[in-house]
Amino acid sequence: MREVAIVGAGMTPFGELWETSLRDLFVEAATGALESAGTETVDSIYIGNMSGGQFVGQEHLGPLMADHLGMAGVAATRVESACASGGIALRTGFIEVASGVSDLVLVAGVEKMTDGADTTNILATASDQELEVYHGITFPGLYAMIARAHMEKYGTTEEDLSWVSVKSHRHGAMNPKAQFRREVTLEEVMSSTMVAEPLRLLHCSPVTDGGAALILCPLDRAKEFTDKPVKITGSGLATAPLALADREDPASLDAVALAAQRAYGMAGVGAADIDVVEVHDCFAIAEICCLEALGFFEKGKAAGAARDGETAVGGRIPVNTSGGLKAKGHPVGASGVSQAVAIVEQLRGEAGDRQVEGAGIGLTQNMGGSGASSVVHILERV
Amino acid sequence: MREVAIVGAGMTPFGELWETSLRDLFVEAATGALESAGTETVDSIYIGNMSGGQFVGQEHLGPLMADHLGMAGVAATRVESACASGGIALRTGFIEVASGVSDLVLVAGVEKMTDGADTTNILATASDQELEVYHGITFPGLYAMIARAHMEKYGTTEEDLSWVSVKSHRHGAMNPKAQFRREVTLEEVMSSTMVAEPLRLLHCSPVTDGGAALILCPLDRAKEFTDKPVKITGSGLATAPLALADREDPASLDAVALAAQRAYGMAGVGAADIDVVEVHDCFAIAEICCLEALGFFEKGKAAGAARDGETAVGGRIPVNTSGGLKAKGHPVGASGVSQAVAIVEQLRGEAGDRQVEGAGIGLTQNMGGSGASSVVHILERV
Repeated sequence: MREVAIVGAGMTPFGELWETSLRDLFVEAATGALESAGTETVDSIYIGNMSGGQFVGQEHLGPLMADHLGMAGVAATRVESACASGGIALRTGFIEVASGVSDLVLVAGVEKMTDGADTTNILATASDQELEVYHGITFPGLYAMIARAHMEKYGTTEEDLSWVSVKSHRHGAMNPKAQFRREVTLEEVMSSTMVAEPLRLLHCSPVTDGGAALILCPLDRAKEFTDKPVKITGSGLATAPLALADREDPASLDAVALAAQRAYGMAGVGAADIDVVEVHDCFAIAEICCLEALGFFEKGKAAGAARDGETAVGGRIPVNTSGGLKAKGHPVGASGVSQAVAIVEQLRGEAGDRQVEGAGIGLTQNMGGSGASSVVHILERV
Repeated sequence: MREVAIVGAGMTPFGELWETSLRDLFVEAATGALESAGTETVDSIYIGNMSGGQFVGQEHLGPLMADHLGMAGVAATRVESACASGGIALRTGFIEVASGVSDLVLVAGVEKMTDGADTTNILATASDQELEVYHGITFPGLYAMIARAHMEKYGTTEEDLSWVSVKSHRHGAMNPKAQFRREVTLEEVMSSTMVAEPLRLLHCSPVTDGGAALILCPLDRAKEFTDKPVKITGSGLATAPLALADREDPASLDAVALAAQRAYGMAGVGAADIDVVEVHDCFAIAEICCLEALGFFEKGKAAGAARDGETAVGGRIPVNTSGGLKAKGHPVGASGVSQAVAIVEQLRGEAGDRQVEGAGIGLTQNMGGSGASSVVHILERV
């Protein structure tokens, strides 16, 4: 297996981008990544996208996007694992470069969500159609059950959940590409509209348009493209039963733990070695459960981390310095790639006010549905 | 890069399978492949599926299918390139084994099409939403334009198209898993309902439910699983502009030619070395254009091949001995994998009445949309 580096990164602003179509989002993000790597072409493209077919009536993004980028002919593939589609794109691109099949690979994630009228129902197709959707449940309800389970088992409170959102917005306020560039107070979070008890509006990530992209190449060619390559040292993918009811403990995200174990194993590191983290905080409870599954906190012990400042920039283990899915926004297929863009910025020392001093090793954790699929990557400064 | 072998193959019958759900189709095909390789587990799964979200409200097939196969935890990814999704699954599985990331990979394709009421419109999302679908065209119309272009340029006739269907049904009649296990006469084809001039009903592949699966491993471990491994010696993927109007010559499938060039290059063979072929005959004209793009015939010269018996079992270059998409059926995400299943049967000498004597090297060619993406694989008897 060849060693693989990230040598370029780009992303669109995240938000309600009424003037920008799905293909435009891709081209803007990809062009940014290509320019930052100083290259005009690649050998292959992977595109993470959850539901172009349902959101905007467009499947078959591979050739569409290759052509609109001016690269008709190039190999191009769409990959999907619901909200983990971006992480999957990074993993498949990593594997293709590692294999030697391609040298230069463009990894992108993109989603156009605001054009559709039926977003919650479209997103629900990432859960089990026969065992969940058919009976009327959607994601806020599923994550509310995860939150309830965590509260019952560990005494987690609504205030714990709310501090996660306060912290995410504080980071997001400093990110020029975030959908919500403003802070929120604990009181605002705790008095926001109830969506699915105990989850309120400000515990939920928003509906977002956006794209993000990376350029990958063999590590031994990285210096042709950048002075600051970032090495991908670990990649782990794992699954769990799709239906929440089929899992032993709904408060335990086993696919996340297993994906982390595989990524740590490949990289030869552990949670204690990580300097900066982007986790999949589609709901505030998800950040808490993910931090436990990744080994940053013991089970049941992550609930107070945001309140105590442990996960803020300057804290013990800064989490979602980009603002996370909550404040940066969550264009589902793009989120996993944008996490890596955020970690690349940190490892290059280009994160501005959100910079984690001396960040040398970062971790991204992306997941699909109520946690049935998860992808973890370990990225290291070279 | 490690050398890669196919050591197991399975598929469901293809047809209108009213009693079998999307997940059941996957499990049946995967179980067949696992049993034929004598293994109960794998390291990773790739699932080719075009539109589970639109057809049956189910995205996120990775964890769903891994769980229903009794393998929750295992890495699992859905890949999509419209009707080339199955070929893409084979390619991504091949790359993962070649890379060394995984040893044992299950490659599957699956589609449940008959449950939906809106099949033609769902399939149309594989063409360009903004430049084609929005204006009302669907795939029979797009391929009718390709047929017209071929007729104008090379003098191809409706009778030429019809002989392709006659040949496909003759092969399909001998395939116990084919959707249409009966022969059709030239007169039946030429008097069948006009769908989009010059394409009649019997020039079009049907709407089909089905699944197909393969087990891949490093070539040096193949004998642990089978006495008759098949080596994947070439894999090529290429794209062309998604919208037909953006291509210089609509009768020339450039993505197919480029994918073939890449696959031949990797395998170190040419068209003259191939003994048996499965091409993507979603419409009769597609078989003709593909055979030209693959180099089996000069441009404009494949039209008479079926009439002259050149592409039948026993002919110069037997094409679609499985019955092809026309007679075997076309469950879009599964078709690319089922092509490889058919070639594996041929190379193992297990194709019964359809056996091509002495078949040593086979080729599969799968494509998406009106040919905007195409995947070509070269398979060889070990």
